[in-house]
Amino acid sequence: MKSNINIYYSLDALEKYLLQNKFSKVFILTDTNTRKHCYPLLSTILSKPILITIKAGEESKNMQSAEKIWEVLNQNHADKNSLLINLGGGMITDLGGFAASIYKRGISFIHLPTTVMSMCDAAIGGKTAINFDSIKNNIGTINLPKATFVHFDFLKTLPNRELKNGLAEIIKHCILQQKIKWLITILDEKELSDMDWKTLILQSIKYKSKIVSEDLNEVGNRKLLNFGHTIGHAIESYFQSQKTKKLLHGEAIAVGMWIEIIISNLCLQYSAIKANELFDIIEFYFGYKKLDAKTKNALIPLLQHDKKNKFDLINFTLLQKDGTPKYDCLISSSVIIHAINFY
Amino acid sequence: MKSNINIYYSLDALEKYLLQNKFSKVFILTDTNTRKHCYPLLSTILSKPILITIKAGEESKNMQSAEKIWEVLNQNHADKNSLLINLGGGMITDLGGFAASIYKRGISFIHLPTTVMSMCDAAIGGKTAINFDSIKNNIGTINLPKATFVHFDFLKTLPNRELKNGLAEIIKHCILQQKIKWLITILDEKELSDMDWKTLILQSIKYKSKIVSEDLNEVGNRKLLNFGHTIGHAIESYFQSQKTKKLLHGEAIAVGMWIEIIISNLCLQYSAIKANELFDIIEFYFGYKKLDAKTKNALIPLLQHDKKNKFDLINFTLLQKDGTPKYDCLISSSVIIHAINFY
Repeated sequence: MKSNINIYYSLDALEKYLLQNKFSKVFILTDTNTRKHCYPLLSTILSKPILITIKAGEESKNMQSAEKIWEVLNQNHADKNSLLINLGGGMITDLGGFAASIYKRGISFIHLPTTVMSMCDAAIGGKTAINFDSIKNNIGTINLPKATFVHFDFLKTLPNRELKNGLAEIIKHCILQQKIKWLITILDEKELSDMDWKTLILQSIKYKSKIVSEDLNEVGNRKLLNFGHTIGHAIESYFQSQKTKKLLHGEAIAVGMWIEIIISNLCLQYSAIKANELFDIIEFYFGYKKLDAKTKNALIPLLQHDKKNKFDLINFTLLQKDGTPKYDCLISSSVIIHAINFY
Repeated sequence: MKSNINIYYSLDALEKYLLQNKFSKVFILTDTNTRKHCYPLLSTILSKPILITIKAGEESKNMQSAEKIWEVLNQNHADKNSLLINLGGGMITDLGGFAASIYKRGISFIHLPTTVMSMCDAAIGGKTAINFDSIKNNIGTINLPKATFVHFDFLKTLPNRELKNGLAEIIKHCILQQKIKWLITILDEKELSDMDWKTLILQSIKYKSKIVSEDLNEVGNRKLLNFGHTIGHAIESYFQSQKTKKLLHGEAIAVGMWIEIIISNLCLQYSAIKANELFDIIEFYFGYKKLDAKTKNALIPLLQHDKKNKFDLINFTLLQKDGTPKYDCLISSSVIIHAINFY
């Protein structure tokens, strides 16, 4: 059964959607950044929505924030015909989607992604989650938003680090489709602010939404999208638990892809020449993130919590000899340690 | 699309199920009562499951208990192939189903109901929930268990009050099917311990599972099952928040049905003669629960949180003139206050 992934590309479409669907109450979830920079752009469309604002940053993607959302919904007598609009990056769309999908056993929600990352990944596909017990996305649901509205003007509000953050998922999508040559012609070593983000994002949305619509519950091809994310999530969880500067999701995924390319080479004979091409692209945009011995040692226990594992082996999506990706590769800890040390 | 409701009636079937499905790890959730009285009956079937025990009582159906479950699952490296067995009454099946259905975006769970209430209601139909913000079932999912195993021997462990508790849902199912005469012949004013519980429960399971399989997400006929529950949940939430003796779910539903029969008479011309017949049955088993003025005044604000409401009107399933039930009856607060005062 194919799932409907509804994506629209203008605020006019949002206005029409709200008029057509007579929601009893409209709530809007923002973080402190999108409250300031993005919410004002919606003032003519939304008449007196009830605002819920969460402190910006991945550390807010937790149960306390979900509880805050439910309390505001309760105080304002939200019912099953109410709507939650999630205005923000991946933290907000994951958190808001999670809170809405289990409030009163599920109310409607829509996403208004405001970052490259959320436009081409988080806001597409219905994965919702919060972090729990220091584990990334430990608790969550698979629940599609009623619709996602992609408004490219929001990108003008983003700092360079946020633009690069989203580029990690775009690179991943191109690796999986073997479209690296195409990607290089679009990127063309341009400054971040000069890149053709619209073309890059539309291509990512097209690829991801096709895969998700055919395999919403991730029993087959959707697993391909986990490339870079097994190691990447462990790295992200580790830095999240440290007091040092946090890594953004894309920055962690960049390291994750790098190490998983090494594992692909070790286990599936993925070509070393191609691997080096990919390392160059990742290094060009993300640099080489040195991992100290303490960090490396912390990764294996974190990997053991990965949602995709089976019978204590760690589950990866890897690249094969011919460059195509393969999911459900079960790899032992010793090989992973070897790859991490090789990195 | 019809949903599969899988119900088995022996522990042999459970043993076979566990052998056929190679789960990576098996966890079992009990409360302090079922740990002591029911878990020992499973000792030959389950080899070294990981036990999670929660304090008995509705007040444990909260986020803290769900978090305890997730922490144990994490500590023991539960993966997507793990199984959670919920051994208990409605509190345990609701809580365990909730925790399992959002842990790592959903792991398998099965129910082993140990009470009349959970056998004929809570363990059938996939509604999971916890109470939050003093509101009954405020947060939850609709997620079917992989299977429900009904083992009537568990009923021998129950005190009379628990047997009666389940009778409320059986009475409800008979009212909805207009099978009150049949019910009376089975009950036949027998002592609780002498009743033919097997016949009563099988009839309830048959009715509920047919309705649920045809309307899992409650867009149509499943709403019929909410009869007695709009007022009932408000009463249950109110007593839950008080320091006085708590009401069991069935005891609250008994009062809920009584008041909703009055509303049915007021709004849909449900026959006063039939209403009195039903009052007699409810009173015979549950007595007349006097509500003081403070309780009555507390009910309207609680009703406003009901999941079924639309546009500030309270949504009920009521009985019509010809005795058949009707869902989505939107009733104003003034009529409800009138009925509560008439009670």
